[in-house]
Amino acid sequence: MEVCKLFFSCPQMSRVWTVVRGGLRVVVLTATVELVGLLVRRLRSKGPLNEVLFFPSETACTEHIFTSHCSGSCLLPHGVETSFSRLLRHLLSASSTLDLCLFSFSNFELCRAVLALHTRGLVVRVLTDKVYAAITGSQIGLLRKAGICVRCDSGSVHMHHKFSVVDGRRLITGSLNWTLTAVQSNRENLVVTEEPDLVAPFVREFQRLWEANDPARHCPPGIAH
Amino acid sequence: MEVCKLFFSCPQMSRVWTVVRGGLRVVVLTATVELVGLLVRRLRSKGPLNEVLFFPSETACTEHIFTSHCSGSCLLPHGVETSFSRLLRHLLSASSTLDLCLFSFSNFELCRAVLALHTRGLVVRVLTDKVYAAITGSQIGLLRKAGICVRCDSGSVHMHHKFSVVDGRRLITGSLNWTLTAVQSNRENLVVTEEPDLVAPFVREFQRLWEANDPARHCPPGIAH
Repeated sequence: MEVCKLFFSCPQMSRVWTVVRGGLRVVVLTATVELVGLLVRRLRSKGPLNEVLFFPSETACTEHIFTSHCSGSCLLPHGVETSFSRLLRHLLSASSTLDLCLFSFSNFELCRAVLALHTRGLVVRVLTDKVYAAITGSQIGLLRKAGICVRCDSGSVHMHHKFSVVDGRRLITGSLNWTLTAVQSNRENLVVTEEPDLVAPFVREFQRLWEANDPARHCPPGIAH
Repeated sequence: MEVCKLFFSCPQMSRVWTVVRGGLRVVVLTATVELVGLLVRRLRSKGPLNEVLFFPSETACTEHIFTSHCSGSCLLPHGVETSFSRLLRHLLSASSTLDLCLFSFSNFELCRAVLALHTRGLVVRVLTDKVYAAITGSQIGLLRKAGICVRCDSGSVHMHHKFSVVDGRRLITGSLNWTLTAVQSNRENLVVTEEPDLVAPFVREFQRLWEANDPARHCPPGIAH
């Protein structure tokens, strides 16, 4: 108590205390404003992307998604947003990486989208089923020919996944195989999400399967694959 | 102003004002505490359920999920939580409804779970593929025999969905067909989520397909189905 009395009876110390008190007030006020701003943003935030696509998709021209315009001879409807055009847009939104884990891949337009991303310089990795990679109509050979790294799963009866991860943060998964029948004729679904609790396990699973199916692991050094 | 002067010069009115002011303070304080509590809860909340299951599942005894104990002669591992046991638990957590939209359904244990829910008195609806409903090993006939309402999709090449909705709020969807091979031998995935933005579209799609495939819509009145 004596120390306090001495402190405040000294005019210089008292002035220092006034300045400190003023500074503290500014700090508290700033922190409060920041905290309220954070709470308001958190309350108003829409959360991560969550979208569901159902198939069969309406049929419409998708040329404008790849190039600026479509040729005049195209008879398909134009300017229509469909489940398939949404899927293409999600894939083509990739800016750095695309990981594909697909049972069956014979859809020409989806192949075109993947090749476009590879041409743009993105890192594209494809993990697929060893049997379905070789069936008639499969686009896997075309991807390999273009220089895209493809691995076939050897540790299961079927590598039946149908998921992709865009830029390591957008997951596209569901029942849809990448075939023309699936897109145009079947009842199918795709979940598109950036929910971290859903995306992270798929990212880890892809990496696990990618490493497990590294050809270098299974063959003696020097053998080409 | 004159009214105010009169109001506060009167001792009785002044007392009333003091009481009102005290009451207002209590209200404001209570509202502030409630608001802060709400904000803290919102910031700390874990959000809706989100879980990912990968297959093939480890093989383990699931008898304890259906009954209290397993017979001594069972040679499977016990007390192991697997992707398949998680799937069974999610299904058996249903308390009012279970909607199934499945391409292929031949897994005996999954059939047992659905029958158990039906026996408990839950409303179970099954929508399936017209071709795969009739293949050898399909459990669809068993469900129908037990009195479960089953409809086959007639508006597509394949009804290729593999999703279920538990109590209208928990979605289970992915690549996994309800077969033994899918559970034990294939690379498969299931997303389990209560995220409303993902669940609601599936609930609507199920209802749409359920109504579209109502046999009463397609046949003349009086014809049994």
